[in-house]
Amino acid sequence: MLTDDERLDYLLAENLRIIQSPSVFSFSLDAVLLARFAYVPKKRGRIVDLCTGNGAIPLFLSARTESSITGVELQPRLAGMARRSIEFNGLEEQIHIIEGDVKEIPAQLGFEKFDTVTCNPPYFPAHEMSDKNLSEHMAIARHELHLTLDEAVKSASQLLKQGGKAAFVHRAGRLIDIMAAMRNNRLEPKRIRLVYPKAGKEANTLLIEGIKDGKPDLKVLPPLIVYGEDGEYTEEVRGLLYGSEE
Amino acid sequence: MLTDDERLDYLLAENLRIIQSPSVFSFSLDAVLLARFAYVPKKRGRIVDLCTGNGAIPLFLSARTESSITGVELQPRLAGMARRSIEFNGLEEQIHIIEGDVKEIPAQLGFEKFDTVTCNPPYFPAHEMSDKNLSEHMAIARHELHLTLDEAVKSASQLLKQGGKAAFVHRAGRLIDIMAAMRNNRLEPKRIRLVYPKAGKEANTLLIEGIKDGKPDLKVLPPLIVYGEDGEYTEEVRGLLYGSEE
Repeated sequence: MLTDDERLDYLLAENLRIIQSPSVFSFSLDAVLLARFAYVPKKRGRIVDLCTGNGAIPLFLSARTESSITGVELQPRLAGMARRSIEFNGLEEQIHIIEGDVKEIPAQLGFEKFDTVTCNPPYFPAHEMSDKNLSEHMAIARHELHLTLDEAVKSASQLLKQGGKAAFVHRAGRLIDIMAAMRNNRLEPKRIRLVYPKAGKEANTLLIEGIKDGKPDLKVLPPLIVYGEDGEYTEEVRGLLYGSEE
Repeated sequence: MLTDDERLDYLLAENLRIIQSPSVFSFSLDAVLLARFAYVPKKRGRIVDLCTGNGAIPLFLSARTESSITGVELQPRLAGMARRSIEFNGLEEQIHIIEGDVKEIPAQLGFEKFDTVTCNPPYFPAHEMSDKNLSEHMAIARHELHLTLDEAVKSASQLLKQGGKAAFVHRAGRLIDIMAAMRNNRLEPKRIRLVYPKAGKEANTLLIEGIKDGKPDLKVLPPLIVYGEDGEYTEEVRGLLYGSEE
């Protein structure tokens, strides 16, 4: 089942396992945070995870909901890893992985059919790709080579029903860009949470959720601090990683 | 020197006094936070404080800079309080109060002549004015009756030189609106700080600074928590209020 340098890692609290590879793709804490942050319908809903990579977010979400989850991934190698992880965990009924371009996916899956979209998009502009040694898989997952932030937000909005919710995780420095992209695409930002590596440091990550055609009413949730003074995860992050939320 | 229910209050750490009135205008913690947050040229700069009220921000800023400070206030009664406070503190050389409409003030003071603009604008839309018992002075200071957020941001930008800095304090829920207004008016947001009343609570206030014609590069500063678990100001806020910053 595993190829090359792939590993079968535990998905922390969820009693799930996930296939990862240090050279191709490994999920990050950001994916965990997004999977905890996003609103999900408990049952009978329809969820899409864009830029799903090795399927970490759908796997995490499966512990929170019985709704169907579709993961969309451009890269066949990553989509294959995601599918094998889903099979290993016996979740083929709930989670489906589609290989495809996020920009084209609303036309394929249908417009305004979904309740929730999650997306952990590429974080870095194409021109910032200084590390030439990055594998092509990593480069595509991390850099806006095939998908810009605007395009990701647009597809998320097209997939959502009116009143549906889109949740994104991104770099804190892109706060203005993501808010502007959301408003331009009928996704009114409603909840935002800033993630700080340590108390007293600048935020490096943001979590944001918008409602399609929602009314302006933004809540800024309490700050999330990742590491304590001792260099270990804070109690809250340990809870998100290992504790049971619901 | 004092009229009606006016009081001559201490301006905390600055060895300054300020005239306040519970029924007309009293400065808030937000003004203190903005006066500490804003970049100010130490010497020979030109600063404008829009919506200056009783002049709290210019008085606070005078402790941080030798630059000239112009406060702009629409309401004659408040402008009068500000002028008397400035006289009381012997700061007539450094601080000037102009009575006028913020929308018209760039034409009066000159376009692109200033290094820093600060502004603690009215926080609430006109239609949210539910408290009919509010005095007219309070209503104008708190509600967007004579000045919208967009208009305040536009005037700030018009006053600033290229590379000049505008700093605002506002409700956290207006985050998207203020960022959009700033970008629409050539003020690129560069630093933002969210203010939380207590740890674990949603943010209620934001501090934001933009640079005229700056490049996109936003920093999200560490969260500022106002009250500790004991209900008293946190050490950081006590420092801002009573300590010496520089």
